[in-house]
Amino acid sequence: MKNNKKSLNYAVIGAGNGGQAMAAHLALCGHNVRLYNRSITKIKKIQEQRGIYLTGKEEGFGRLSSMTDNIKEAIENADVIMVTIPASGHREIANLCHPYLKDGQIIVLNPGRTGGALEFLNIIKQKAPNKNIIISEAQTFVYACRAETAGVVKIFSIKNQVSLASIPSYMTKYVVDTIKDAYPQFIPADNVLETSLNNIGAIFHPCPTLLNCGRIESTNGDFEYYLEGITPTVSKILEQMDSERVKVAHALGVKTVTALKWLEVTYGSKGESLHEAIQNTSGYMGIKAPSSMDTRYIFEDIPESLVPISAIGATVGIRTPIIDSIINLACTAHGENYFAAGRNVRNLGIEGLTVSELMELATFGIVERPREVVA
Amino acid sequence: MKNNKKSLNYAVIGAGNGGQAMAAHLALCGHNVRLYNRSITKIKKIQEQRGIYLTGKEEGFGRLSSMTDNIKEAIENADVIMVTIPASGHREIANLCHPYLKDGQIIVLNPGRTGGALEFLNIIKQKAPNKNIIISEAQTFVYACRAETAGVVKIFSIKNQVSLASIPSYMTKYVVDTIKDAYPQFIPADNVLETSLNNIGAIFHPCPTLLNCGRIESTNGDFEYYLEGITPTVSKILEQMDSERVKVAHALGVKTVTALKWLEVTYGSKGESLHEAIQNTSGYMGIKAPSSMDTRYIFEDIPESLVPISAIGATVGIRTPIIDSIINLACTAHGENYFAAGRNVRNLGIEGLTVSELMELATFGIVERPREVVA
Repeated sequence: MKNNKKSLNYAVIGAGNGGQAMAAHLALCGHNVRLYNRSITKIKKIQEQRGIYLTGKEEGFGRLSSMTDNIKEAIENADVIMVTIPASGHREIANLCHPYLKDGQIIVLNPGRTGGALEFLNIIKQKAPNKNIIISEAQTFVYACRAETAGVVKIFSIKNQVSLASIPSYMTKYVVDTIKDAYPQFIPADNVLETSLNNIGAIFHPCPTLLNCGRIESTNGDFEYYLEGITPTVSKILEQMDSERVKVAHALGVKTVTALKWLEVTYGSKGESLHEAIQNTSGYMGIKAPSSMDTRYIFEDIPESLVPISAIGATVGIRTPIIDSIINLACTAHGENYFAAGRNVRNLGIEGLTVSELMELATFGIVERPREVVA
Repeated sequence: MKNNKKSLNYAVIGAGNGGQAMAAHLALCGHNVRLYNRSITKIKKIQEQRGIYLTGKEEGFGRLSSMTDNIKEAIENADVIMVTIPASGHREIANLCHPYLKDGQIIVLNPGRTGGALEFLNIIKQKAPNKNIIISEAQTFVYACRAETAGVVKIFSIKNQVSLASIPSYMTKYVVDTIKDAYPQFIPADNVLETSLNNIGAIFHPCPTLLNCGRIESTNGDFEYYLEGITPTVSKILEQMDSERVKVAHALGVKTVTALKWLEVTYGSKGESLHEAIQNTSGYMGIKAPSSMDTRYIFEDIPESLVPISAIGATVGIRTPIIDSIINLACTAHGENYFAAGRNVRNLGIEGLTVSELMELATFGIVERPREVVA
């Protein structure tokens, strides 16, 4: 798998299923890869064998140059820092990284969910205001994969196409070009608002989970999440949430399609309603519901997907009552104030911005307010 | 069943299961009863046999003096007008009745749900401001009954105790005394805010229905509504809604208990949470979920139970975010704007009232604002 392209220094942050697949794949592509995990004991086996075995769509042994719980060691001299942890950890990673970041380093959140790059940027601007870092987010995770045993990961599929955007947005093409050796799948999006507001998981995850709450808890999730869970009324409520998301995107001139159209584009499944289209999506067959309400569909998709859509909506003057209602119920279900803890206007660094200022932030990473003229 | 107490003229409005039971029972008690139904064809059989047969807890033939679709004929000379229709029809009945009402007539809404008497009063004040009518609401319906065939009703049980309040509240005792021959079960509540804010159906009906939406629609309600539907997370959300209801009541000094305590008082069932207490309520065993989302648990309990709790909350400065979230989801589920159509501050006639003015309205039926002193 060695090739004669330029070998890059990659840091992969997080050694979950996805991080292991990505680290091994990058190593197989001939890059120098350091793997960081918060807990070193979890990657003991990888450390012992000095790498990760891949099976499935990519096969081979990815030899890593370092496996560490020291963030400084992981990211120094990295050309690209690939963050593969759940979105709820992005803030912590930004806080851990900033002292060691160097000008020109590329960070890619895989994926950003909604507002990942904006939140990361907001922390870097506060903690390390003089560093020029290129913060990027992928719209979704490029692999479907699962660790089979410690240090052995199976890649079931690799997506054909994943959009990516950077802040500043004129660096997106540079980032896509830089990583295209390993990832020809990445294609440039206009800006991080596009990658953020096209997060369809925000629509498909929390609401059907809540509207099937009784069944999830009384059957431990033993039913078809999409096929049995998204009934006509659940579908009506999803469509309303989705129309709020689309309105927020449109207020910013961000390219998006409805969830219904997205199903057609992604899976070729058609229908008059989400209910019908989902019944026609064979890829959803056999996907079971979460086994309890303690699921990422809530604890990740509420604070990192729905709260930021609501926050961006509030900033651009679009009301999101159904999205907010779902957030409210999730707060009570989990006993968490997700509005306060999630990607709200303060955590995104967008409080009080106008529509054009928000676009300016997404485009340039900075908002320059005209100086007031003193008479 | 004839007795030597004073025979009253009753009008029973609505010939559903409950209206038929009530009309027949009142007739058996020796009163003169007229039965009104919007559609005469539905009571054809009753008209032919000139009354209703009762079975179960009360037995016999209740001979009625009139069965009519003419509201004037039904209510003129009535001492007491018993309204037994769903709360969503109270407004229509008030609009139909007001031209024919006479000073001193008693109206009882069986039950009022939340704000029934206030809504009724608001219409009478606008349409017939000079009439002195005593508008009352029962806290719940006194019978559990079902029409077996046309003109034959089975009474399964009669509640031991049902609280009732009138506007003005100093007339409550008079109303309870007037009807006590047939209904010794009625006991006086402080005022209509007490009967209204103790509407526990507001807590137990819409929220578990929505949080089991997927299961209701994919199984046509073939599961135990209370025992399987009110799981630990559903229970947490119900408790939060209930605490909003209790806060609204407390802000008005209205006597109420939590839904958890209510289960203990009503059924003797205890538990740390609603989930536990409901599992211990044998009376809930075997009660199935609604067979579809087109259920009174939504189309009655949202506009006539939750919207008025939210509206009263807004008037007294108590936020009800979880109640409002449930209303929002129901609006989308049914494609109805229940906030606009239901018992909102305008329909209740409480817009802009202070806490003491709201109490004054519930107590006296009128709010006298001090005249501004003109210098």
